[in-house]
Amino acid sequence: MKGLKKKLADNMLVLRNSHQSTTVINVKGCPIGGESVVVVAGPCAIENEDLLKETAFKVRGSGAVMLRGGAYKPRTSPYSFQGLGEEGLKILARIGEEMNMPVVTEVMDSEDLDLLCEYTDILQVGARNMQNFSLLKKIGRIDMPVILKRGLAATIEEWLSAAEYILAGGNSQVILCERGVRTAETWTRNTLDLSAVALVKELSHLPVIVDPSHGTGVRSLVAPMARAAVAAGADGIMVEVHPVPERALSDGDQSLTPKGFSKLMKELEPIARAVGRRIY
Amino acid sequence: MKGLKKKLADNMLVLRNSHQSTTVINVKGCPIGGESVVVVAGPCAIENEDLLKETAFKVRGSGAVMLRGGAYKPRTSPYSFQGLGEEGLKILARIGEEMNMPVVTEVMDSEDLDLLCEYTDILQVGARNMQNFSLLKKIGRIDMPVILKRGLAATIEEWLSAAEYILAGGNSQVILCERGVRTAETWTRNTLDLSAVALVKELSHLPVIVDPSHGTGVRSLVAPMARAAVAAGADGIMVEVHPVPERALSDGDQSLTPKGFSKLMKELEPIARAVGRRIY
Amino acid sequence: MKGLKKKLADNMLVLRNSHQSTTVINVKGCPIGGESVVVVAGPCAIENEDLLKETAFKVRGSGAVMLRGGAYKPRTSPYSFQGLGEEGLKILARIGEEMNMPVVTEVMDSEDLDLLCEYTDILQVGARNMQNFSLLKKIGRIDMPVILKRGLAATIEEWLSAAEYILAGGNSQVILCERGVRTAETWTRNTLDLSAVALVKELSHLPVIVDPSHGTGVRSLVAPMARAAVAAGADGIMVEVHPVPERALSDGDQSLTPKGFSKLMKELEPIARAVGRRIY
Amino acid sequence: MKGLKKKLADNMLVLRNSHQSTTVINVKGCPIGGESVVVVAGPCAIENEDLLKETAFKVRGSGAVMLRGGAYKPRTSPYSFQGLGEEGLKILARIGEEMNMPVVTEVMDSEDLDLLCEYTDILQVGARNMQNFSLLKKIGRIDMPVILKRGLAATIEEWLSAAEYILAGGNSQVILCERGVRTAETWTRNTLDLSAVALVKELSHLPVIVDPSHGTGVRSLVAPMARAAVAAGADGIMVEVHPVPERALSDGDQSLTPKGFSKLMKELEPIARAVGRRIY
Repeated sequence: MKGLKKKLADNMLVLRNSHQSTTVINVKGCPIGGESVVVVAGPCAIENEDLLKETAFKVRGSGAVMLRGGAYKPRTSPYSFQGLGEEGLKILARIGEEMNMPVVTEVMDSEDLDLLCEYTDILQVGARNMQNFSLLKKIGRIDMPVILKRGLAATIEEWLSAAEYILAGGNSQVILCERGVRTAETWTRNTLDLSAVALVKELSHLPVIVDPSHGTGVRSLVAPMARAAVAAGADGIMVEVHPVPERALSDGDQSLTPKGFSKLMKELEPIARAVGRRIY
Repeated sequence: MKGLKKKLADNMLVLRNSHQSTTVINVKGCPIGGESVVVVAGPCAIENEDLLKETAFKVRGSGAVMLRGGAYKPRTSPYSFQGLGEEGLKILARIGEEMNMPVVTEVMDSEDLDLLCEYTDILQVGARNMQNFSLLKKIGRIDMPVILKRGLAATIEEWLSAAEYILAGGNSQVILCERGVRTAETWTRNTLDLSAVALVKELSHLPVIVDPSHGTGVRSLVAPMARAAVAAGADGIMVEVHPVPERALSDGDQSLTPKGFSKLMKELEPIARAVGRRIY
Repeated sequence: MKGLKKKLADNMLVLRNSHQSTTVINVKGCPIGGESVVVVAGPCAIENEDLLKETAFKVRGSGAVMLRGGAYKPRTSPYSFQGLGEEGLKILARIGEEMNMPVVTEVMDSEDLDLLCEYTDILQVGARNMQNFSLLKKIGRIDMPVILKRGLAATIEEWLSAAEYILAGGNSQVILCERGVRTAETWTRNTLDLSAVALVKELSHLPVIVDPSHGTGVRSLVAPMARAAVAAGADGIMVEVHPVPERALSDGDQSLTPKGFSKLMKELEPIARAVGRRIY
Repeated sequence: MKGLKKKLADNMLVLRNSHQSTTVINVKGCPIGGESVVVVAGPCAIENEDLLKETAFKVRGSGAVMLRGGAYKPRTSPYSFQGLGEEGLKILARIGEEMNMPVVTEVMDSEDLDLLCEYTDILQVGARNMQNFSLLKKIGRIDMPVILKRGLAATIEEWLSAAEYILAGGNSQVILCERGVRTAETWTRNTLDLSAVALVKELSHLPVIVDPSHGTGVRSLVAPMARAAVAAGADGIMVEVHPVPERALSDGDQSLTPKGFSKLMKELEPIARAVGRRIY
């Protein structure tokens, strides 16, 4: 670890020991953190079964290995679409099984944990809950992979410390997800911090993936940032795809079309090879 | 509302109608949002009964009307002191009753709501949970005053929208608390945004208080920022006080001594009068 | 200096020695940094002689002691009004003399220094030039008071170090001006950091003034922030006033009307008294 | 320009018209903005002739085509090494000629422009002078390529508007350089905003390069960010290299060794090919 002094207590579980390789988290046979770069895709929110099926079919055809979709949506306004809830979870699980894709969905309340664990293969803790320590502690006591998104203005120290809450509880299946931080820039929704990917990969043994959709909020920036993320060393990419983005119930502006996603996948392959990896 | 265009949907419950006065929230006979400025004081964390009693006795003697103290602490690291939990709540309730001071404590998990409501007079939602929408919805369904702190990097729009989650549920006893936002400045813990106080007072009918302790993280800045907050129109101040700050289990650097707090109270009175108010 | 460790090299000229009082900078008989709080007012840009005269007449009548007005304007776009240049300087000097008010104007280029010094009583270095070190060095070699605004995202350390460039050159007549920093908040133009005022007053012997006009960008927030600044310990306030803000060639949204300014002055007096000072 | 609404006035010179390709800026036969990605390398500051010569020799051997080196250094503290001034310029020009490498150096004062133009092939306007509009206007009137770095907290709109100042003056040889923006993250010096590269490339016809050295401030992050920059579509990379970084008079922590630079160049080639380009 030359050039970057260790900033965290030596005995933290998230830290990489010398020569320790990245922890590989196996999700139904699909390894995250290994040689291959995994691509998770799907709509922001699960809107209905047909749309999710169509999306899943298309993204899988283009090479996505996991399916994302929100059933509980953290919306700024209480009057915005809040997600389908349990009905959405059932749809997600059904389509995931049909398509043979592990599924990812967000948990917003520790009371929902049991329910979510029934239906999902990976839990996601969103940026707004990164320091919901009570939730993190409960996730630490279950046996399920979890994607921990970086908080809206979280430092890397806080992000790793949040992961430590989960590891300290006994659950070491944590995948970190960079999704941009707040800055004064208004033309992008967030400022995607790819240096955090490289820095966390150096400090920690946990796999790191990148969400260029929330990280930019702008459709045309998703592909360049996905390419950049893989070049920077990311272990995976999580991308929002919607068959008709302009009609999406949330985050349409940042969703790729299936065609755009297909194009992206073709661009990612040579980048992955250029850094000695491949797309799973 | 000259000079500041309304930025939120007209029908939001948090918004102030023309000529509407500030909502007064009555906590055991103590009004927040009225003509008087209220001062809430106490240690960051409840450490033990004697310390809390000593602190309560002294801050009450200097003019604080409410007592704060954390039983569940949101700490960056899982290895830091996490609070006394239920035992802390009991101590807080006991001392509050003895001293005849309404008490404030933080809720970190919706599962603890019932328990907390038994012991506290005001709930506090911390900055890290400002967008824990699931918690907000549940608080919306109970009948208890709540202090909603502004998130670490929350815009005013997001803060008011978070309050709207509570009001939309039927609970209109929301007190907003400005506690600083993240900036690149490292000599202060946060950058206290007093313009947010004036702006929110203009847009919303909810009372707004200020936490200069977390807002600066620096003891010597607490008094000037408390004075400035009252001058800017704040309806109250929430200050951390510890009998021996250097031995505090959390946030000692930003805690006033009882003597420092007493001095502050003497400074606040003329400022309050200067803006046509008084200290409750 | 309890509670705040010294963060800068001991021998820096900007630092306050123990028991050293604030440096009083005398501008044509008007002291900045003394017991009295000074108020500088005027339009953002000098538009023409009549408007400046009207503004000066009114703000002086309400109690402003110095007149501000830009002849060289740092505008984001090259196609916006760039100021009247030398013609503006002449107008400013003429009105200042007529009204017996010292005048302040911004320097944007070291080549203009000689010219500006002929016409102005205080130079202003704007936020965008706070680290124009070449300009700072040249100002260090002249004998004229200078207002050094904090940079758009400058830390306090950088701000004090920028002042040090001037002091190191031999010119110790530096007045620091807090004018807000960049944050993710979009409803205000900047986030006015009043804790910086208290902190700098503690660390440095230089007077500190506050610009609530640029600091908020919102007319209705100027008065509350001006009051808060005085409560926090500011040695002065610099406010934009325009007879007809909606027709101003720049910064109309944040300009007070003469009437609004007059109201503000009445509000400031009791605040100043509450902190043991008065308005000059 | 789908998915990203045009945010600037239609007639701005920096904007890309439909189907307009990137402006290629020719520097002594080396094209910036064309099919090839150019690499500029060299020490932060010119310290002496031998060191610069050694560095130039090595970076050229590894594939850098241009040489950077500061003669006038914008240092936070007036007591830090300020650069060799004209003597440094002479050294830079001499080594550039010897090695047949065009040279880049920073201008800090409009009064130095004539002198710098004698010695350099590309001017650099640093982040701290991005809105030194007086300097920009003067550069607009000369015939020399200029690298315009993004300001410390500049929005993309402000950055493009700053470039517009130069183009409006008649000089269209502007190369934009992303070098990170200020955030609350403290483990990196800045947060490199690669989405700005993709966004500016979409909006503007000007070439965009990236400085991963200042953009991260951490040696081990320079190579991953350089790779990511090329993957995101950057037209070039500017990297600090020093034979003995730990003895560098400035920015040693972020400087690559010649060996590290050589390794980076080998990594960049396949990334460039993956996006259909090559390293010049």
